[in-house]
Order: sequence, then structure tokens, then C-alpha cells
Amino acid sequence: MHFSVDKGGLTHIDESGSAHMVDVSGKPDTERTAIARGEVVLRPETLALIRQGLMKKGDVLGVAQIAGILGAKKTSELIPLCHPLPLHQVDVKLELDDALPGVRITALARTTGKTGVEMEALTAVAVAALTVYDMVKAVEKGARIHNIRLVEKHGGLSGDVINEEA
Amino acid sequence: MHFSVDKGGLTHIDESGSAHMVDVSGKPDTERTAIARGEVVLRPETLALIRQGLMKKGDVLGVAQIAGILGAKKTSELIPLCHPLPLHQVDVKLELDDALPGVRITALARTTGKTGVEMEALTAVAVAALTVYDMVKAVEKGARIHNIRLVEKHGGLSGDVINEEA
Amino acid sequence: MHFSVDKGGLTHIDESGSAHMVDVSGKPDTERTAIARGEVVLRPETLALIRQGLMKKGDVLGVAQIAGILGAKKTSELIPLCHPLPLHQVDVKLELDDALPGVRITALARTTGKTGVEMEALTAVAVAALTVYDMVKAVEKGARIHNIRLVEKHGGLSGDVINEEA
Amino acid sequence: MHFSVDKGGLTHIDESGSAHMVDVSGKPDTERTAIARGEVVLRPETLALIRQGLMKKGDVLGVAQIAGILGAKKTSELIPLCHPLPLHQVDVKLELDDALPGVRITALARTTGKTGVEMEALTAVAVAALTVYDMVKAVEKGARIHNIRLVEKHGGLSGDVINEEA
Amino acid sequence: MHFSVDKGGLTHIDESGSAHMVDVSGKPDTERTAIARGEVVLRPETLALIRQGLMKKGDVLGVAQIAGILGAKKTSELIPLCHPLPLHQVDVKLELDDALPGVRITALARTTGKTGVEMEALTAVAVAALTVYDMVKAVEKGARIHNIRLVEKHGGLSGDVINEEA
Amino acid sequence: MHFSVDKGGLTHIDESGSAHMVDVSGKPDTERTAIARGEVVLRPETLALIRQGLMKKGDVLGVAQIAGILGAKKTSELIPLCHPLPLHQVDVKLELDDALPGVRITALARTTGKTGVEMEALTAVAVAALTVYDMVKAVEKGARIHNIRLVEKHGGLSGDVINEEA
Repeated sequence: MHFSVDKGGLTHIDESGSAHMVDVSGKPDTERTAIARGEVVLRPETLALIRQGLMKKGDVLGVAQIAGILGAKKTSELIPLCHPLPLHQVDVKLELDDALPGVRITALARTTGKTGVEMEALTAVAVAALTVYDMVKAVEKGARIHNIRLVEKHGGLSGDVINEEA
Repeated sequence: MHFSVDKGGLTHIDESGSAHMVDVSGKPDTERTAIARGEVVLRPETLALIRQGLMKKGDVLGVAQIAGILGAKKTSELIPLCHPLPLHQVDVKLELDDALPGVRITALARTTGKTGVEMEALTAVAVAALTVYDMVKAVEKGARIHNIRLVEKHGGLSGDVINEEA
Repeated sequence: MHFSVDKGGLTHIDESGSAHMVDVSGKPDTERTAIARGEVVLRPETLALIRQGLMKKGDVLGVAQIAGILGAKKTSELIPLCHPLPLHQVDVKLELDDALPGVRITALARTTGKTGVEMEALTAVAVAALTVYDMVKAVEKGARIHNIRLVEKHGGLSGDVINEEA
Repeated sequence: MHFSVDKGGLTHIDESGSAHMVDVSGKPDTERTAIARGEVVLRPETLALIRQGLMKKGDVLGVAQIAGILGAKKTSELIPLCHPLPLHQVDVKLELDDALPGVRITALARTTGKTGVEMEALTAVAVAALTVYDMVKAVEKGARIHNIRLVEKHGGLSGDVINEEA
Repeated sequence: MHFSVDKGGLTHIDESGSAHMVDVSGKPDTERTAIARGEVVLRPETLALIRQGLMKKGDVLGVAQIAGILGAKKTSELIPLCHPLPLHQVDVKLELDDALPGVRITALARTTGKTGVEMEALTAVAVAALTVYDMVKAVEKGARIHNIRLVEKHGGLSGDVINEEA
Repeated sequence: MHFSVDKGGLTHIDESGSAHMVDVSGKPDTERTAIARGEVVLRPETLALIRQGLMKKGDVLGVAQIAGILGAKKTSELIPLCHPLPLHQVDVKLELDDALPGVRITALARTTGKTGVEMEALTAVAVAALTVYDMVKAVEKGARIHNIRLVEKHGGLSGDVINEEA
């Protein structure tokens, strides 16, 4: 084992392939944005109860939105190899969708930094979705969290990624 | 507003329907178990790289497993209305599945207490899935986290729930 | 220095008077409830903007309520000598009060355990109050958090405490 | 719903008025300082016990000071819409005041960044005050946390705010 | 893969040898105590500065003591396979020792539960030791944290362990 | 008490010598690297069980590595006067060493900032060492964590520190 601490090159402490948080110190600071999305699929009856504000635990969409925003800020605590970074914006939107039927969750994260923020956007969606699940589980044991994915990603050397229209 | 602090009845501080962590003090302590599952859908090429241990960030399944176990312990921090509780067991299993193609994640949580542990099992699956996503995102921008759901639930007044064979 | 690990007696590691989390292992488990209250004093114009839902950051009372509930769960992380304990109920209520003028916050915490939950109720009030401050600070630099206090406390050897009518 | 990810403009995901962490990516990095203050009002007998170092849990002011510093670092975890940011300085001072009677707490926070640090200073005061409460509650059930407010704020586009002499 | 959710037996989700938090649900609740110890070895000049209260960051032993107590409460967050549990007592003592020369740290943790608390005591020692290091590092780059070990352990099926006199 | 908020000078709120997070706002941002090391001393039989992958809790080195990386990210939460900062790289390596006998742990932390990252590297080593202890404690009650120290430090006004060859 040897740490060569040369500026810019750096230091594969792990030729063995084990886990490490990759060195991003040589990357430029650029503005980074990511949008992620996912759905919680519910029975129509459950959706109706949410819409009418009749869930016993309270306002489903409002609580899940706050949970998603806070969740984005916990990303680097939850995901072992994520770099901790400041966040300049987090937005989480939840919409009721009768066609699913269920709740559609979209999250945007933004920073200026050396790494992207797609994990922050995805984590916001996941935590908001888990919170929706928690708020409805007294009346529905079969809710499913579906299709958490990256929608768009901007900034960084790899260029823009557009998986679908936001 | 009035808090009536009678044993057993208690205290709807919120006749307005706003959010609250429901009173479980009158419930008996019983052994609670929950099993949850979900999948991360990947391209076959990505799956092959995981299987060969060639992901640059390290051992995908090993890191995601630890992340899932730690995630279960963070459930009540992430989900606003979840009760904090001790956990007597957490198991997270990840399997490569060529038929998906992708990674199948199953988590079990167990405690003895007044509330169920399905949110702990679901959170373990979600955090493990986000970690898989993070470990492969350098080579695949289109990974999708699918179908996080409750498989089984035991203990508690509402009886056993079996949504599918574990 | 000597640790005498006798059941019940125990162990003053600190004859020097320095800080320690006191031994509660000999105390019985009893149901514990506490209610705390506090106010955020605002200008009437600010109160009007909250009432009309015109604050730029969003729904002031809804966000502060969730923050208060989550804050109660962080009590033993924030306050060095607090014992970590499960919580069986947390309720946080926020009311607009033209007479203050401002926002009145009341929180209830409940558990069954060896120590009281007044710090949990007080922490919920404090965190909710800080969140109200944060939500209005773009329009008011002079908000003040006032009079966070214990209203009632039940359970435990020291008997009931009633400082004012809840 | 539409995310327009234009540099500088950006993206009101929430025309509905629901909560979001506002976009600060277009703001300049400036040095930010904030000073906050608050008091814990106690009985003279309690104040005397603190002064004599006779509180059973230990050194009240020393423990509360550390709690306040650590609390400042937890601000963005506690307050849902606060931006996470590095901190370049945190100072918390506690003074016994016979005229109150009680403990006066003053906190300073400093960073270089896109948003102010008044919430960090206020959170430090609130957590230090809760810790004082916890340390004295065995001998006083009527302690009150009073008048947590911003004293000064420097840096940022809105200019300096001086509410009172520090 | 199969989860057999039988009481008491349970469920090796991992015949593969991968990590899991072991099932303790079948174990009895007993009173558990553990004492751990470690040293920070310093130059005599550094020890003298601590004794005289001349360290620029403040009171070394007081800050480290609080850090150790808070660290014990974070054990299950830091150590992936540790069970989260309530704590009924935490004591951390720091002593200056000219013979080392350095600081000797002793920590006691106590609970009533299904698993031991040696990791909580050891974590308290480690975090207190890191804090001592942080407080003195401006004047000494060669401090060393030595010999963190279990001194005593009581409660549990495996019987008492006495490695050295407390 | 008076806060003089002059740029660059600043503000000793604490002439009394009590604790504070020192002001680093006047320091330049430079690239900072630190390498720390420590050992867990074990019996040869325990080492053999780790090497053969027979520890009941799972893969000792893999779990400890992840714990160390996550631990580095928690440094400013654990150590009261540490500044929170982004991290650009964290690497933790664990090696079995028959000569100790035991496990040798080396950690590297890197950022660009106003303060060094030696505490982050040392915390990574300490948390990884505690995790090794936890994974083997079922078969060995006498494991000892030894000699956690700084190996190298680069960046910052005080110049490079080389305590031993990495």
C-alpha cells in the first residue's frame, strides 16, 4: 500500500477493488442540476381519501414534501460513497394522478460543485415516496413505490442527460 | 385547543386534520416482523460489470447491503410520523437477476414493540437501491428503482399480511 | 477513580462534579406525558401574510409542525445529558393569535419509560419556533421567540406538575 | 408542472405555494455573520446553585456551550428549508445575570456563502437554552426560555441589520 | 432465498456469509453494564498546557467528556451492525496522567436490554480521545490514541468479563 | 461582552478560555490532505477466522471499510469544535497483519478548504477500528485498538507534516 499524494493524480489506495469515495478534487466547480421522478401506486379508494384530506395521520402530500426536502440533505449520510456537498436549491412536488392511480413525485436539486446532484434528487423522491407509504399504510397494505429514475441532469463533464421530458 | 391527557383515550390535538405522530401508548408490546422487496433495473452490460467486480467505486452489493442496514436504523429520522423504536434484527439481501435484468433487494426488520416495522424494512430496501444506483451511475444513466413493496408483515392487532411469497 | 457496579447504587465516576448522564436504571417504567408551549411574536403585517398563505417559502404552520415533530425525535442528540428513549406520541399544534400578535406553539410528548419527556416537548416547541422564524425572516428581521415553558408533566416519582391550564 | 432549468431564472416547481428550499445559486458568495441572543429565566435559588457548581448533572454553562456549538452545526437538519452550508466560526457565550435572574446566551455564526447564518446563530442559542433547562430541571420546574432574537446580521444583499447593541 | 419467520429460530437470509444485524429477539432483557478505557499519549509540554487551561480551543477535558457522552448515543449510527438501544447511564471520566504522559479516558455505559453495551462504552472512549486530539493538535502533531479496550462487562448470557481492575 | 465583527480580526467572545470553534474565515482555501493510521490487535485465532470469512456477523474488513468512510463524513458532528466541510475524497484501507497480529487501518481524507482534514482521517480510522471490534467481539473479549495517529498532512499554512512513511 502506498499513498502517492500528488496533486491531480492521486492515490489509488485500493488496487484491490474495494469501496472508496472517488477523488473529485481535480474537477472544476460547475453548476449542477438534476431532476428525478417516481410514483407511489395506490388503490383508487386510497387516492380519494388523500384528496379529501381524510388520512388519519394528516396531510399526506404536505408531510411527504417536507420529508423529501430533508431527505435530499441527508443523501451523503445515507449513501456511503456520496460526497457531502452544499445544496443551493431543493424542490419536491407531489401530484395526485387518477390514471396511475397514485401519487407522482418530482424532485429537483441544484448546487455549484465538483460532483453531480442526481443522488440528492433521487433520494428526495425516495424519502417522499416512503413517507406517502407511511401516511396511507393504515388503509392500504399494498402500496408500491414505482420507477424512481433520473429525468434530467445538467452540468459536469459528461454533458447533459435528458431521459424524458420534465 | 385542549389536551385531555387521559390514559387510553387521548388527546386529539389536531381536530384540524394536520399531521401528528399517533398515540400508540395503549397498544401491547408484541413481536413484529416485516419483509419488503424492490428491484433496481439495469442494462445487461451493467449487470455483467457488477458480477465481474469491475465497478470503479467498489463492491456494489456489499456496499448497498451495509447502506440498507444503516438505513433501516434511520427510518424514524427520515419519515416524519414514524415512531422511533429499537430493532432486534435487520437483514438485507441483494441478488443479481439476469431475468430482470438487475438487482433484487429483500430486507427483513424485527422488533418487539407497539408499532410495526414495515417502514424499517421498506426504508432498508430504498436506501440499498439508491446505493446500487450510486455505484453504477458512472456507466449507466438510465437505472430505475422498481416496485418497492411490503411482502409480509407479522405481529400487531391487524394480523398477518402476506402479499407474496418471500 | 473506581466504578462500583452495584445494582441500584451506582457509580459516581465523577466526584469532581463534571457532567454525566445520570443513572436511571433503578427507576420504574411508568407512562410519562409532558406538554410544553411557546410563542413567536411577529408584526401584525407578518401575521396577515401567514394567514393569507403568501409567505414565499411556503405554508408556515404546516412546515413548522413537521419540524417540531422531527425535532422531538432528535432531543437526545441535541441535549448532551438527555437519555435516548422511544416516543409513543408526539403532537405539535400551531395557532395564529392576533392578540400576541404571533404564533402560539403547543407540543405534547408521551412515552413509557424511566425518565420524563419534558425535554422532548420543549425541543419540539423550540424547533417549530425556529422554523416559523426561518419561514418569515425574509419579511421580518425582528421576530422573537418567547416564553418556551413546561405547561404540564405527568408520570414519574416527582408527581404531576401543572404550571398552567393546557 | 414544468421545470425550466434556465441559469439565473429558475424553476418555480411550486406555483401552488407549497414549501421549497429557495434557489440561491445566483447569489454571490459574501462573508456572512449573525449574532443572536436569548435568556433562560430562573429562580434566584437556582442561579445560586449554578454559580456554586452544585447542579447534580454537572457544569451547566460548560455543557450548554458545547451543546450550542453542536446545535449550530445541525441547523439545516432541524429546519426543513434551511440551506446546508459550511461554518467558519461559531461562538456561544453564557453569562449568569442576577438581574434577570437567569442565564443570558449569545451566539455568533460566520461563513462565506450565498445565504445568511442567522438561523445558525438562533439555533445555537435555542439548543444552549434547552440544555440549561435540562441541567436545572431537577430543582426547578418553572424555568422559561425567553426572547430568542437576532441582534446583528452582516453580509448579503439586504445589508446590515442591527436590532440592538451586541 | 427464503425467510422463515419462526419465533426463536430465524432466518439466515445470508447463507453467503455477508453482513447482517443478528437476531436478538429471543434473548432476555437483562441489566447490562460495560466499562472501557483508552489513553491519549502526549508530550509533557502539551499536558502542562492542558493542566494550565491554556489551550486555545478551550477546556480540553470538559469538551471531550461531553463529546464522549454524545458519542455513546451515536454508537448504532456509526457501527453498521450494532443494535440501536436505549441507554440508562453514560459516564465518561478524563484524567491527566504525568506517567503516560497523557490523558486517560474511562467510560461506563448501562442499559437493560437484549444486547451488551460494550460498543457504547468503547465508542465513548474513542470519541472523547478524538476530541482531545482535536483540542491539542495546534500545538502537537504527534499525539497518539492508545489502547482502547474493554475493562469490564456485566449482564448477558456469556457472564461477566473482567479484563482489568476498573 | 462585546462582539467586534471586524473582517479578519474577530471577536474573542471568550476571553474566559471556554470552548469555541475558532474563526477560519480569514484563511485561504488550499488543497488539504491527511493520512492517519491505527491497528486493532487480535489473537492469532481471531485473525485466522477473519481471513477465512468465518465471522458470524459477516465480512469484517468490508463492513469496517464502509463504516470508516461514513465515519469520516460524521467528523464535525462527533467532535464539537471541528468545522463542517465538504470532502473531495475518502479512502480507507484495511489489511490483515500476522506480525501484529491484527488489522492495520489506513485512511486518507482530502478537501479544498480553510482547515485541515486530519480529524476526518483519524475519525475514519477510529470508526473502522470500532467496527472491527464489534465484528469480532463474539469470539474475542480482549481486542485492543492501538496507536491511532497522523501519518501525513499536506496543505495549510503550517506546512507539510510527515510523521512516518505512508
